[in-house]
Amino acid sequence: MNSIKLGFVGLGTMGAPMARHLVRAGHHVTVWNRSPEKSAPFLAEGILVAPSLPVLAGEVDICFLCVNRSEDVVECIEAMAPHAAPGTLFVDHSTIAPGIARKIQQDLFAEGHSFLDAPITGGSMGAQSGTLTIFCGGAIADYERALPFLKAYAKRAERVGGSGTGQMMKLANQIAVGGALQALCESLAFAKKAGLDVAQARELLAGGAAGSWAFDHYGPKILSEDWTPGFSIKNQRKDFSYCIEEAEAIDAAIPGTIVVDTLLEQLEEEGQGELASCLLYELLARVEKPYDESGDE
Amino acid sequence: MNSIKLGFVGLGTMGAPMARHLVRAGHHVTVWNRSPEKSAPFLAEGILVAPSLPVLAGEVDICFLCVNRSEDVVECIEAMAPHAAPGTLFVDHSTIAPGIARKIQQDLFAEGHSFLDAPITGGSMGAQSGTLTIFCGGAIADYERALPFLKAYAKRAERVGGSGTGQMMKLANQIAVGGALQALCESLAFAKKAGLDVAQARELLAGGAAGSWAFDHYGPKILSEDWTPGFSIKNQRKDFSYCIEEAEAIDAAIPGTIVVDTLLEQLEEEGQGELASCLLYELLARVEKPYDESGDE
Repeated sequence: MNSIKLGFVGLGTMGAPMARHLVRAGHHVTVWNRSPEKSAPFLAEGILVAPSLPVLAGEVDICFLCVNRSEDVVECIEAMAPHAAPGTLFVDHSTIAPGIARKIQQDLFAEGHSFLDAPITGGSMGAQSGTLTIFCGGAIADYERALPFLKAYAKRAERVGGSGTGQMMKLANQIAVGGALQALCESLAFAKKAGLDVAQARELLAGGAAGSWAFDHYGPKILSEDWTPGFSIKNQRKDFSYCIEEAEAIDAAIPGTIVVDTLLEQLEEEGQGELASCLLYELLARVEKPYDESGDE
Repeated sequence: MNSIKLGFVGLGTMGAPMARHLVRAGHHVTVWNRSPEKSAPFLAEGILVAPSLPVLAGEVDICFLCVNRSEDVVECIEAMAPHAAPGTLFVDHSTIAPGIARKIQQDLFAEGHSFLDAPITGGSMGAQSGTLTIFCGGAIADYERALPFLKAYAKRAERVGGSGTGQMMKLANQIAVGGALQALCESLAFAKKAGLDVAQARELLAGGAAGSWAFDHYGPKILSEDWTPGFSIKNQRKDFSYCIEEAEAIDAAIPGTIVVDTLLEQLEEEGQGELASCLLYELLARVEKPYDESGDE
Protein backbone atom coordinates (compact mmCIF):
# COMPACT_ATOMS: atom_id res chain seq x y z
CA MET A 1 0.00 0.00 0.00
CA ASN A 2 1.36 3.38 -1.04
CA SER A 3 1.28 6.11 1.61
CA ILE A 4 0.21 8.77 -0.92
CA LYS A 5 -3.55 9.32 -0.81
CA LEU A 6 -5.32 9.53 -4.16
CA GLY A 7 -8.70 10.95 -5.19
CA PHE A 8 -10.65 10.18 -8.34
CA VAL A 9 -13.44 12.44 -9.60
CA GLY A 10 -15.74 11.24 -12.38
CA LEU A 11 -16.76 7.58 -12.54
CA GLY A 12 -18.10 7.48 -16.11
CA THR A 13 -17.29 5.10 -18.97
CA MET A 14 -13.62 6.05 -18.79
CA GLY A 15 -13.20 7.11 -15.16
CA ALA A 16 -14.75 4.07 -13.47
CA PRO A 17 -12.36 1.47 -14.89
CA MET A 18 -9.41 3.86 -14.40
CA ALA A 19 -10.25 4.35 -10.70
CA ARG A 20 -10.57 0.58 -10.28
CA HIS A 21 -7.12 0.09 -11.85
CA LEU A 22 -5.67 2.44 -9.19
CA VAL A 23 -7.35 0.43 -6.43
CA ARG A 24 -6.16 -2.86 -7.92
CA ALA A 25 -2.60 -1.52 -8.10
CA GLY A 26 -2.74 -1.23 -4.28
CA HIS A 27 -3.11 2.55 -3.98
CA HIS A 28 -5.17 4.39 -1.35
CA VAL A 29 -8.09 5.77 -3.38
CA THR A 30 -11.17 7.85 -2.49
CA VAL A 31 -13.72 8.45 -5.24
CA TRP A 32 -16.49 10.93 -5.96
CA ASN A 33 -19.07 11.25 -8.72
CA ARG A 34 -21.66 13.96 -9.32
CA SER A 35 -24.54 11.46 -9.60
CA PRO A 36 -24.33 9.14 -6.55
CA GLU A 37 -25.62 6.08 -8.49
CA LYS A 38 -22.18 5.74 -10.05
CA SER A 39 -20.43 5.83 -6.64
CA ALA A 40 -22.66 3.15 -5.10
CA PRO A 41 -20.93 0.15 -6.76
CA PHE A 42 -17.57 1.45 -5.50
CA LEU A 43 -18.88 1.59 -1.93
CA ALA A 44 -20.21 -1.95 -2.36
CA GLU A 45 -16.74 -3.03 -3.52
CA GLY A 46 -15.20 -1.64 -0.32
CA ILE A 47 -13.78 1.53 -1.86
CA LEU A 48 -13.88 4.90 -0.02
CA VAL A 49 -16.51 7.29 -1.38
CA ALA A 50 -16.36 10.99 -0.46
CA PRO A 51 -19.66 12.75 0.34
CA SER A 52 -18.62 15.96 -1.44
CA LEU A 53 -15.77 17.57 -3.40
CA PRO A 54 -14.62 19.75 -0.44
CA VAL A 55 -14.38 16.69 1.81
CA LEU A 56 -12.53 14.75 -0.92
CA ALA A 57 -10.09 17.66 -1.36
CA GLY A 58 -9.14 17.50 2.33
CA GLU A 59 -8.40 13.76 2.12
CA VAL A 60 -5.95 13.51 -0.79
CA ASP A 61 -2.42 14.34 -1.96
CA ILE A 62 -3.14 13.85 -5.68
CA CYS A 63 -6.57 14.13 -7.24
CA PHE A 64 -7.37 12.74 -10.70
CA LEU A 65 -10.35 14.07 -12.65
CA CYS A 66 -12.10 12.48 -15.61
CA VAL A 67 -15.20 14.56 -16.30
CA ASN A 68 -16.42 16.15 -19.52
CA ARG A 69 -16.28 19.80 -20.62
CA SER A 70 -13.97 22.67 -19.67
CA GLU A 71 -16.64 24.13 -17.38
CA ASP A 72 -17.06 20.82 -15.51
CA VAL A 73 -13.34 20.73 -14.73
CA VAL A 74 -13.32 24.38 -13.63
CA GLU A 75 -16.33 23.79 -11.38
CA CYS A 76 -14.78 20.72 -9.69
CA ILE A 77 -11.40 22.40 -9.17
CA GLU A 78 -13.04 25.55 -7.72
CA ALA A 79 -14.99 23.40 -5.26
CA MET A 80 -11.87 21.51 -4.16
CA ALA A 81 -8.93 23.95 -4.21
CA PRO A 82 -9.84 26.00 -1.11
CA HIS A 83 -10.15 22.79 0.95
CA ALA A 84 -7.00 21.07 -0.32
CA ALA A 85 -3.76 20.81 1.66
CA PRO A 86 -0.93 23.00 0.28
CA GLY A 87 0.86 21.33 -2.63
CA THR A 88 -2.03 19.16 -3.74
CA LEU A 89 -1.58 17.97 -7.34
CA PHE A 90 -4.63 17.92 -9.61
CA VAL A 91 -4.36 15.72 -12.72
CA ASP A 92 -7.08 16.26 -15.32
CA HIS A 93 -7.86 13.43 -17.78
CA SER A 94 -10.81 15.25 -19.41
CA THR A 95 -10.45 16.70 -22.90
CA ILE A 96 -10.85 20.47 -22.50
CA ALA A 97 -9.71 23.69 -24.17
CA PRO A 98 -5.89 24.13 -23.87
CA GLY A 99 -6.35 27.77 -22.81
CA ILE A 100 -8.64 26.74 -19.94
CA ALA A 101 -6.10 24.13 -18.85
CA ARG A 102 -3.39 26.81 -18.74
CA LYS A 103 -5.70 29.13 -16.74
CA ILE A 104 -6.51 26.40 -14.21
CA GLN A 105 -2.78 25.66 -13.83
CA GLN A 106 -2.00 29.35 -13.19
CA ASP A 107 -4.83 29.75 -10.66
CA LEU A 108 -3.87 26.58 -8.78
CA PHE A 109 -0.21 27.57 -8.79
CA ALA A 110 -1.14 30.95 -7.26
CA GLU A 111 -2.95 29.06 -4.49
CA GLY A 112 0.07 26.84 -3.81
CA HIS A 113 -1.21 23.79 -5.67
CA SER A 114 -0.15 22.04 -8.90
CA PHE A 115 -1.91 20.94 -12.05
CA LEU A 116 -1.19 18.58 -14.92
CA ASP A 117 -3.33 18.39 -18.07
CA ALA A 118 -3.34 14.70 -18.93
CA PRO A 119 -5.99 13.83 -21.54
CA ILE A 120 -6.25 10.21 -22.57
CA THR A 121 -6.75 8.19 -25.73
CA GLY A 122 -7.53 4.54 -26.29
CA GLY A 123 -11.28 4.53 -25.77
CA SER A 124 -13.40 2.58 -23.32
CA MET A 125 -11.53 -0.59 -24.37
CA GLY A 126 -8.24 1.05 -23.42
CA ALA A 127 -9.61 2.22 -20.05
CA GLN A 128 -10.85 -1.27 -19.23
CA SER A 129 -7.65 -3.04 -20.26
CA GLY A 130 -5.44 -0.37 -18.67
CA THR A 131 -3.70 0.39 -21.98
CA LEU A 132 -4.50 4.08 -22.42
CA THR A 133 -2.08 6.61 -23.90
CA ILE A 134 -1.79 9.82 -21.85
CA PHE A 135 -0.54 13.18 -23.15
CA CYS A 136 0.85 15.15 -20.19
CA GLY A 137 1.31 18.93 -20.15
CA GLY A 138 2.84 20.72 -17.16
CA ALA A 139 5.96 21.00 -15.00
CA ILE A 140 8.42 18.10 -15.14
CA ALA A 141 8.26 17.65 -11.35
CA ASP A 142 4.46 17.34 -11.43
CA TYR A 143 4.64 14.87 -14.31
CA GLU A 144 7.15 12.75 -12.37
CA ARG A 145 4.97 12.89 -9.29
CA ALA A 146 1.92 11.62 -11.21
CA LEU A 147 3.65 9.05 -13.43
CA PRO A 148 3.83 6.07 -11.03
CA PHE A 149 0.05 6.24 -10.63
CA LEU A 150 -0.74 6.83 -14.30
CA LYS A 151 0.99 3.54 -15.02
CA ALA A 152 -1.95 1.77 -13.37
CA TYR A 153 -4.07 2.40 -16.48
CA ALA A 154 -1.70 3.60 -19.21
CA LYS A 155 0.60 1.74 -21.57
CA ARG A 156 2.19 5.13 -22.31
CA ALA A 157 2.10 8.41 -20.40
CA GLU A 158 4.45 10.96 -21.95
CA ARG A 159 5.10 14.56 -21.09
CA VAL A 160 4.72 16.57 -24.30
CA GLY A 161 5.55 20.05 -22.93
CA GLY A 162 4.36 22.77 -20.56
CA SER A 163 0.86 23.47 -19.31
CA GLY A 164 -1.83 23.06 -22.00
CA THR A 165 0.32 21.02 -24.39
CA GLY A 166 -1.28 17.75 -23.26
CA GLN A 167 -4.61 19.13 -24.47
CA MET A 168 -3.02 20.39 -27.70
CA MET A 169 -1.66 16.90 -28.41
CA LYS A 170 -5.08 15.43 -27.63
CA LEU A 171 -6.67 17.81 -30.15
CA ALA A 172 -4.11 16.74 -32.79
CA ASN A 173 -5.09 13.17 -31.93
CA GLN A 174 -8.81 13.91 -32.29
CA ILE A 175 -8.21 15.49 -35.70
CA ALA A 176 -6.52 12.26 -36.82
CA VAL A 177 -9.24 10.11 -35.20
CA GLY A 178 -11.93 12.11 -37.01
CA GLY A 179 -10.14 11.78 -40.34
CA ALA A 180 -9.71 8.05 -39.89
CA LEU A 181 -13.43 7.73 -39.12
CA GLN A 182 -14.31 9.67 -42.28
CA ALA A 183 -11.95 7.51 -44.39
CA LEU A 184 -13.54 4.33 -43.03
CA CYS A 185 -17.17 5.41 -43.34
CA GLU A 186 -16.79 7.13 -46.71
CA SER A 187 -15.04 4.17 -48.33
CA LEU A 188 -17.42 1.52 -46.92
CA ALA A 189 -20.48 3.60 -47.88
CA PHE A 190 -19.03 3.92 -51.40
CA ALA A 191 -18.49 0.14 -51.49
CA LYS A 192 -22.10 -0.42 -50.40
CA LYS A 193 -23.51 1.94 -53.04
CA ALA A 194 -21.26 0.24 -55.63
CA GLY A 195 -22.96 -3.07 -54.79
CA LEU A 196 -19.80 -4.63 -53.35
CA ASP A 197 -19.73 -6.98 -50.36
CA VAL A 198 -19.09 -4.47 -47.54
CA ALA A 199 -17.67 -7.12 -45.17
CA GLN A 200 -15.18 -8.19 -47.85
CA ALA A 201 -14.32 -4.54 -48.50
CA ARG A 202 -13.70 -3.92 -44.77
CA GLU A 203 -11.47 -6.93 -44.55
CA LEU A 204 -9.48 -6.43 -47.78
CA LEU A 205 -8.97 -2.69 -47.29
CA ALA A 206 -7.93 -3.12 -43.64
CA GLY A 207 -4.95 -5.23 -44.71
CA GLY A 208 -3.38 -2.69 -47.09
CA ALA A 209 -2.43 0.97 -47.40
CA ALA A 210 -5.93 2.01 -46.26
CA GLY A 211 -5.61 0.13 -42.97
CA SER A 212 -6.16 1.82 -39.61
CA TRP A 213 -7.21 1.32 -36.01
CA ALA A 214 -10.62 2.61 -37.14
CA PHE A 215 -10.87 -0.11 -39.82
CA ASP A 216 -10.00 -2.75 -37.23
CA HIS A 217 -12.19 -1.51 -34.36
CA TYR A 218 -15.05 0.51 -35.85
CA GLY A 219 -15.29 -1.55 -39.07
CA PRO A 220 -16.74 -4.63 -37.31
CA LYS A 221 -19.13 -2.39 -35.30
CA ILE A 222 -20.43 -0.90 -38.56
CA LEU A 223 -20.93 -4.33 -40.12
CA SER A 224 -22.96 -5.53 -37.14
CA GLU A 225 -24.81 -2.18 -36.99
CA ASP A 226 -23.77 -1.79 -33.36
CA TRP A 227 -24.19 1.92 -32.61
CA THR A 228 -23.58 1.73 -28.85
CA PRO A 229 -20.73 4.04 -27.86
CA GLY A 230 -17.67 3.70 -27.37
CA PHE A 231 -17.27 7.26 -28.39
CA SER A 232 -20.54 9.13 -28.85
CA ILE A 233 -21.30 11.63 -31.60
CA LYS A 234 -21.96 14.23 -28.92
CA ASN A 235 -18.59 13.70 -27.25
CA GLN A 236 -16.72 13.64 -30.54
CA ARG A 237 -18.36 16.95 -31.48
CA LYS A 238 -17.42 18.37 -28.05
CA ASP A 239 -13.77 17.56 -28.83
CA PHE A 240 -14.11 18.94 -32.37
CA SER A 241 -15.43 22.23 -30.94
CA TYR A 242 -12.09 22.63 -29.10
CA CYS A 243 -10.17 21.59 -32.26
CA ILE A 244 -11.99 24.19 -34.37
CA GLU A 245 -11.60 26.94 -31.75
CA GLU A 246 -7.89 26.20 -31.33
CA ALA A 247 -7.20 25.82 -35.06
CA GLU A 248 -8.62 29.31 -35.53
CA ALA A 249 -6.33 30.62 -32.78
CA ILE A 250 -3.12 29.07 -34.20
CA ASP A 251 -4.04 29.55 -37.89
CA ALA A 252 -4.19 25.82 -38.63
CA ALA A 253 -6.26 24.47 -41.53
CA ILE A 254 -8.46 21.49 -40.60
CA PRO A 255 -10.83 21.14 -43.57
CA GLY A 256 -11.18 17.37 -43.12
CA THR A 257 -12.24 17.81 -39.50
CA ILE A 258 -14.81 20.42 -40.57
CA VAL A 259 -16.36 17.89 -42.96
CA VAL A 260 -16.66 15.19 -40.28
CA ASP A 261 -18.07 17.68 -37.78
CA THR A 262 -20.67 18.91 -40.31
CA LEU A 263 -21.83 15.34 -40.95
CA LEU A 264 -21.94 14.45 -37.24
CA GLU A 265 -23.89 17.65 -36.60
CA GLN A 266 -26.55 16.36 -38.97
CA LEU A 267 -26.81 13.11 -36.98
CA GLU A 268 -26.98 15.07 -33.72
CA GLU A 269 -29.79 17.22 -35.11
CA GLU A 270 -31.65 13.99 -35.93
CA GLY A 271 -31.50 13.19 -32.21
CA GLN A 272 -28.78 10.52 -32.53
CA GLY A 273 -26.07 12.33 -30.54
CA GLU A 274 -25.83 9.60 -27.88
CA LEU A 275 -25.01 6.91 -30.46
CA ALA A 276 -21.52 5.88 -31.65
CA SER A 277 -19.71 8.23 -34.01
CA CYS A 278 -19.33 5.44 -36.59
CA LEU A 279 -23.05 5.94 -37.28
CA LEU A 280 -21.52 8.34 -39.81
CA TYR A 281 -21.40 5.29 -42.12
CA GLU A 282 -25.16 4.94 -41.97
CA LEU A 283 -25.60 8.61 -42.89
CA LEU A 284 -23.26 8.31 -45.90
CA ALA A 285 -24.77 5.01 -47.07
CA ARG A 286 -28.38 6.28 -47.16
CA VAL A 287 -30.03 6.19 -50.55
CA GLU A 288 -30.27 9.97 -50.81
CA LYS A 289 -26.95 11.81 -50.93
CA PRO A 290 -26.73 13.48 -47.51
CA TYR A 291 -24.13 16.10 -48.24
CA ASP A 292 -23.68 18.47 -51.14
CA GLU A 293 -19.94 18.78 -51.65
CA SER A 294 -20.27 20.88 -54.78
CA GLY A 295 -21.28 24.04 -52.91
CA ASP A 296 -23.30 26.45 -54.99
CA GLU A 297 -22.53 24.86 -58.33
CA MET B 1 9.13 -23.91 -65.85
CA ASN B 2 5.41 -23.57 -66.47
CA SER B 3 4.22 -24.32 -70.02
CA ILE B 4 1.83 -21.34 -69.99
CA LYS B 5 3.42 -18.32 -71.68
CA LEU B 6 3.01 -14.99 -69.94
CA GLY B 7 3.34 -11.39 -71.13
CA PHE B 8 3.84 -8.29 -69.03
CA VAL B 9 3.12 -4.79 -70.34
CA GLY B 10 4.27 -1.75 -68.37
CA LEU B 11 7.60 -1.86 -66.53
CA GLY B 12 7.14 1.19 -64.28
CA THR B 13 7.56 1.56 -60.51
CA MET B 14 4.94 -1.14 -59.91
CA GLY B 15 5.18 -3.25 -63.08
CA ALA B 16 8.94 -3.82 -63.15
CA PRO B 17 9.20 -5.59 -59.77
CA MET B 18 5.97 -7.51 -60.49
CA ALA B 19 7.32 -8.83 -63.80
CA ARG B 20 10.55 -9.83 -62.06
CA HIS B 21 8.57 -11.76 -59.43
CA LEU B 22 6.92 -13.76 -62.25
CA VAL B 23 10.34 -14.57 -63.74
CA ARG B 24 11.74 -15.55 -60.33
CA ALA B 25 8.77 -17.85 -59.74
CA GLY B 26 9.93 -19.81 -62.78
CA HIS B 27 7.31 -18.69 -65.30
CA HIS B 28 7.91 -18.08 -69.03
CA VAL B 29 7.66 -14.30 -69.32
CA THR B 30 7.98 -11.85 -72.22
CA VAL B 31 7.87 -8.13 -71.39
CA TRP B 32 7.16 -4.90 -73.23
CA ASN B 33 7.30 -1.25 -72.26
CA ARG B 34 6.36 1.85 -74.26
CA SER B 35 9.72 3.54 -73.63
CA PRO B 36 12.48 1.01 -74.49
CA GLU B 37 14.84 2.31 -71.74
CA LYS B 38 12.75 0.42 -69.19
CA SER B 39 12.95 -2.83 -71.18
CA ALA B 40 16.73 -2.70 -71.57
CA PRO B 41 17.57 -3.92 -68.03
CA PHE B 42 15.24 -6.90 -68.54
CA LEU B 43 17.05 -7.88 -71.72
CA ALA B 44 20.35 -7.56 -69.86
CA GLU B 45 18.96 -9.87 -67.17
CA GLY B 46 18.19 -12.52 -69.82
CA ILE B 47 14.47 -11.87 -70.00
CA LEU B 48 12.56 -11.94 -73.31
CA VAL B 49 11.61 -8.47 -74.57
CA ALA B 50 8.98 -8.12 -77.31
CA PRO B 51 9.65 -5.55 -80.05
CA SER B 52 5.98 -4.47 -80.20
CA LEU B 53 2.55 -5.13 -78.70
CA PRO B 54 1.30 -7.12 -81.74
CA VAL B 55 4.33 -9.42 -81.57
CA LEU B 56 3.90 -9.83 -77.80
CA ALA B 57 0.21 -10.68 -78.29
CA GLY B 58 1.13 -13.56 -80.62
CA GLU B 59 3.55 -15.02 -78.08
CA VAL B 60 1.46 -15.34 -74.92
CA ASP B 61 -1.46 -17.20 -73.31
CA ILE B 62 -2.01 -14.66 -70.51
CA CYS B 63 -0.96 -11.02 -70.70
CA PHE B 64 -0.69 -8.80 -67.60
CA LEU B 65 -0.82 -5.02 -67.93
CA CYS B 66 0.30 -2.40 -65.44
CA VAL B 67 0.07 0.95 -67.18
CA ASN B 68 -1.65 4.18 -66.12
CA ARG B 69 -4.93 5.68 -67.35
CA SER B 70 -8.04 4.12 -68.90
CA GLU B 71 -6.96 5.28 -72.36
CA ASP B 72 -3.53 3.65 -72.01
CA VAL B 73 -5.14 0.29 -71.25
CA VAL B 74 -7.59 0.62 -74.15
CA GLU B 75 -4.76 1.51 -76.52
CA CYS B 76 -2.61 -1.47 -75.48
CA ILE B 77 -5.52 -3.93 -75.66
CA GLU B 78 -6.58 -2.65 -79.10
CA ALA B 79 -3.02 -3.11 -80.36
CA MET B 80 -2.83 -6.68 -79.04
CA ALA B 81 -6.28 -8.27 -79.37
CA PRO B 82 -6.29 -8.77 -83.18
CA HIS B 83 -2.93 -10.58 -82.97
CA ALA B 84 -3.69 -12.77 -79.97
CA ALA B 85 -4.49 -16.48 -80.18
CA PRO B 86 -8.16 -17.30 -79.41
CA GLY B 87 -8.85 -17.47 -75.67
CA THR B 88 -6.02 -15.18 -74.60
CA LEU B 89 -6.60 -13.80 -71.09
CA PHE B 90 -5.75 -10.14 -70.43
CA VAL B 91 -5.28 -9.17 -66.76
CA ASP B 92 -5.17 -5.44 -66.08
CA HIS B 93 -3.44 -4.20 -62.91
CA SER B 94 -3.86 -0.48 -63.77
CA THR B 95 -6.40 1.63 -61.87
CA ILE B 96 -8.96 2.74 -64.46
CA ALA B 97 -12.65 3.66 -64.66
CA PRO B 98 -14.90 0.68 -63.82
CA GLY B 99 -17.12 1.40 -66.84
CA ILE B 100 -14.11 1.24 -69.19
CA ALA B 101 -13.02 -2.05 -67.61
CA ARG B 102 -16.50 -3.49 -68.30
CA LYS B 103 -16.39 -2.22 -71.89
CA ILE B 104 -12.96 -3.78 -72.51
CA GLN B 105 -14.20 -7.07 -71.08
CA GLN B 106 -17.26 -7.08 -73.39
CA ASP B 107 -15.20 -6.22 -76.47
CA LEU B 108 -12.58 -8.88 -75.74
CA PHE B 109 -15.29 -11.45 -75.03
CA ALA B 110 -16.87 -10.69 -78.41
CA GLU B 111 -13.48 -11.38 -80.02
CA GLY B 112 -13.11 -14.71 -78.22
CA HIS B 113 -10.72 -13.47 -75.52
CA SER B 114 -11.05 -12.94 -71.76
CA PHE B 115 -10.40 -10.05 -69.39
CA LEU B 116 -9.94 -9.60 -65.67
CA ASP B 117 -9.76 -6.21 -63.97
CA ALA B 118 -7.20 -6.70 -61.21
CA PRO B 119 -6.04 -3.38 -59.70
CA ILE B 120 -3.47 -3.58 -56.96
CA THR B 121 -2.76 -1.93 -53.62
CA GLY B 122 0.28 -2.00 -51.37
CA GLY B 123 2.45 0.63 -53.04
CA SER B 124 5.93 0.32 -54.49
CA MET B 125 7.05 -1.37 -51.25
CA GLY B 126 4.36 -4.04 -51.75
CA ALA B 127 5.36 -4.56 -55.38
CA GLN B 128 9.01 -5.01 -54.43
CA SER B 129 8.33 -7.39 -51.56
CA GLY B 130 5.65 -9.29 -53.49
CA THR B 131 2.98 -8.55 -50.89
CA LEU B 132 0.40 -6.69 -52.96
CA THR B 133 -3.34 -7.02 -52.47
CA ILE B 134 -5.25 -7.55 -55.73
CA PHE B 135 -8.97 -6.87 -56.23
CA CYS B 136 -10.20 -9.10 -59.08
CA GLY B 137 -13.35 -8.47 -61.12
CA GLY B 138 -14.51 -10.88 -63.82
CA ALA B 139 -15.60 -14.45 -64.51
CA ILE B 140 -14.71 -17.08 -61.90
CA ALA B 141 -12.95 -19.24 -64.51
CA ASP B 142 -10.73 -16.32 -65.59
CA TYR B 143 -9.92 -15.48 -61.98
CA GLU B 144 -8.92 -19.10 -61.34
CA ARG B 145 -6.81 -19.13 -64.48
CA ALA B 146 -4.88 -16.03 -63.37
CA LEU B 147 -4.58 -16.79 -59.65
CA PRO B 148 -1.53 -19.12 -59.68
CA PHE B 149 0.49 -16.35 -61.38
CA LEU B 150 -0.87 -13.49 -59.26
CA LYS B 151 0.52 -15.32 -56.25
CA ALA B 152 4.03 -14.44 -57.46
CA TYR B 153 3.55 -10.85 -56.24
CA ALA B 154 0.42 -10.81 -54.09
CA LYS B 155 -0.17 -11.73 -50.47
CA ARG B 156 -3.89 -11.64 -51.32
CA ALA B 157 -5.71 -11.78 -54.65
CA GLU B 158 -9.47 -12.01 -54.13
CA ARG B 159 -12.31 -12.05 -56.61
CA VAL B 160 -14.77 -9.37 -55.50
CA GLY B 161 -17.43 -9.87 -58.22
CA GLY B 162 -18.08 -9.56 -61.96
CA SER B 163 -16.33 -7.36 -64.48
CA GLY B 164 -15.55 -3.86 -63.19
CA THR B 165 -15.93 -4.70 -59.49
CA GLY B 166 -12.16 -5.00 -59.02
CA GLN B 167 -11.90 -1.35 -60.08
CA MET B 168 -14.85 -0.40 -57.84
CA MET B 169 -13.10 -1.98 -54.84
CA LYS B 170 -9.89 -0.17 -55.76
CA LEU B 171 -11.77 3.15 -55.81
CA ALA B 172 -13.22 2.39 -52.34
CA ASN B 173 -9.63 1.69 -51.29
CA GLN B 174 -8.36 4.97 -52.75
CA ILE B 175 -11.11 6.88 -50.90
CA ALA B 176 -9.88 5.34 -47.63
CA VAL B 177 -6.22 5.94 -48.55
CA GLY B 178 -6.99 9.60 -49.28
CA GLY B 179 -8.84 10.03 -46.00
CA ALA B 180 -6.01 8.43 -44.05
CA LEU B 181 -3.52 10.79 -45.74
CA GLN B 182 -5.67 13.79 -44.81
CA ALA B 183 -5.97 12.58 -41.19
CA LEU B 184 -2.20 12.19 -40.93
CA CYS B 185 -1.23 15.47 -42.59
CA GLU B 186 -3.95 17.57 -40.94
CA SER B 187 -3.13 16.34 -37.43
CA LEU B 188 0.66 16.66 -37.79
CA ALA B 189 0.34 20.13 -39.34
CA PHE B 190 -1.90 21.12 -36.40
CA ALA B 191 0.72 19.73 -33.99
CA LYS B 192 3.43 21.76 -35.74
CA LYS B 193 1.41 24.98 -35.62
CA ALA B 194 0.65 24.27 -31.94
CA GLY B 195 4.40 24.21 -31.27
CA LEU B 196 4.45 20.53 -30.34
CA ASP B 197 7.28 18.12 -31.20
CA VAL B 198 5.99 16.69 -34.50
CA ALA B 199 8.11 13.52 -34.25
CA GLN B 200 6.70 12.84 -30.79
CA ALA B 201 3.18 13.52 -32.09
CA ARG B 202 3.67 11.07 -34.99
CA GLU B 203 4.91 8.40 -32.66
CA LEU B 204 2.35 8.86 -29.85
CA LEU B 205 -0.66 9.18 -32.16
CA ALA B 206 0.39 6.18 -34.26
CA GLY B 207 0.08 3.91 -31.22
CA GLY B 208 -3.54 4.74 -30.35
CA ALA B 209 -6.98 5.17 -31.88
CA ALA B 210 -5.54 7.52 -34.55
CA GLY B 211 -3.10 4.87 -35.81
CA SER B 212 -2.96 3.84 -39.45
CA TRP B 213 -0.75 2.44 -42.21
CA ALA B 214 -0.35 6.08 -43.30
CA PHE B 215 0.96 7.09 -39.85
CA ASP B 216 3.44 4.20 -39.96
CA HIS B 217 4.64 4.59 -43.56
CA TYR B 218 4.07 8.22 -44.60
CA GLY B 219 4.67 9.68 -41.13
CA PRO B 220 8.43 8.97 -41.18
CA LYS B 221 8.66 10.28 -44.78
CA ILE B 222 7.05 13.55 -43.67
CA LEU B 223 9.43 13.90 -40.73
CA SER B 224 12.47 13.47 -42.97
CA GLU B 225 10.90 15.71 -45.64
CA ASP B 226 11.32 12.93 -48.19
CA TRP B 227 8.93 13.82 -51.00
CA THR B 228 10.06 11.15 -53.49
CA PRO B 229 7.13 9.00 -54.57
CA GLY B 230 5.95 6.25 -53.67
CA PHE B 231 2.60 7.50 -54.77
CA SER B 232 2.71 10.80 -56.65
CA ILE B 233 0.22 13.64 -56.30
CA LYS B 234 -0.53 13.32 -60.03
CA ASN B 235 -1.31 9.61 -59.78
CA GLN B 236 -3.39 10.03 -56.64
CA ARG B 237 -5.42 12.73 -58.42
CA LYS B 238 -5.82 10.43 -61.44
CA ASP B 239 -7.39 7.83 -59.13
CA PHE B 240 -9.52 10.48 -57.41
CA SER B 241 -10.87 11.57 -60.81
CA TYR B 242 -12.30 8.06 -61.24
CA CYS B 243 -13.60 8.08 -57.64
CA ILE B 244 -15.40 11.39 -58.18
CA GLU B 245 -16.82 10.34 -61.57
CA GLU B 246 -18.05 7.02 -60.18
CA ALA B 247 -19.42 8.52 -56.93
CA GLU B 248 -21.54 10.83 -59.06
CA ALA B 249 -22.81 7.84 -61.05
CA ILE B 250 -23.78 5.73 -58.01
CA ASP B 251 -24.97 8.67 -55.85
CA ALA B 252 -22.24 8.21 -53.22
CA ALA B 253 -21.12 11.12 -51.02
CA ILE B 254 -17.33 11.49 -50.78
CA PRO B 255 -16.86 14.93 -49.21
CA GLY B 256 -13.60 13.93 -47.50
CA THR B 257 -12.11 12.81 -50.81
CA ILE B 258 -13.15 16.10 -52.40
CA VAL B 259 -11.21 18.00 -49.70
CA VAL B 260 -8.02 15.97 -50.27
CA ASP B 261 -8.34 16.31 -54.04
CA THR B 262 -8.80 20.09 -53.77
CA LEU B 263 -5.64 20.39 -51.65
CA LEU B 264 -3.60 18.12 -53.94
CA GLU B 265 -4.85 20.13 -56.93
CA GLN B 266 -3.25 23.20 -55.35
CA LEU B 267 0.09 21.38 -55.07
CA GLU B 268 -0.20 20.18 -58.67
CA GLU B 269 -0.87 23.74 -59.84
CA GLU B 270 2.31 24.77 -58.04
CA GLY B 271 4.16 22.30 -60.29
CA GLN B 272 4.70 19.66 -57.59
CA GLY B 273 2.55 16.91 -59.15
CA GLU B 274 5.47 14.48 -59.49
CA LEU B 275 6.22 14.58 -55.74
CA ALA B 276 4.78 12.27 -53.06
CA SER B 277 1.18 12.86 -52.03
CA CYS B 278 2.24 13.29 -48.37
CA LEU B 279 3.57 16.70 -49.43
CA LEU B 280 0.01 17.61 -48.39
CA TYR B 281 1.52 18.01 -44.90
CA GLU B 282 3.82 20.76 -46.12
CA LEU B 283 0.89 22.62 -47.68
CA LEU B 284 -1.16 22.44 -44.47
CA ALA B 285 1.78 23.38 -42.25
CA ARG B 286 2.64 26.58 -44.15
CA VAL B 287 2.39 29.77 -42.16
CA GLU B 288 -0.51 31.12 -44.21
CA LYS B 289 -3.73 29.11 -44.01
CA PRO B 290 -3.95 27.43 -47.42
CA TYR B 291 -7.61 26.50 -47.49
CA ASP B 292 -10.71 28.45 -46.55
CA GLU B 293 -13.05 25.92 -45.01
CA SER B 294 -15.65 28.48 -44.02
CA GLY B 295 -16.89 29.03 -47.58
CA ASP B 296 -18.47 32.45 -48.05
CA GLU B 297 -18.72 33.34 -44.38
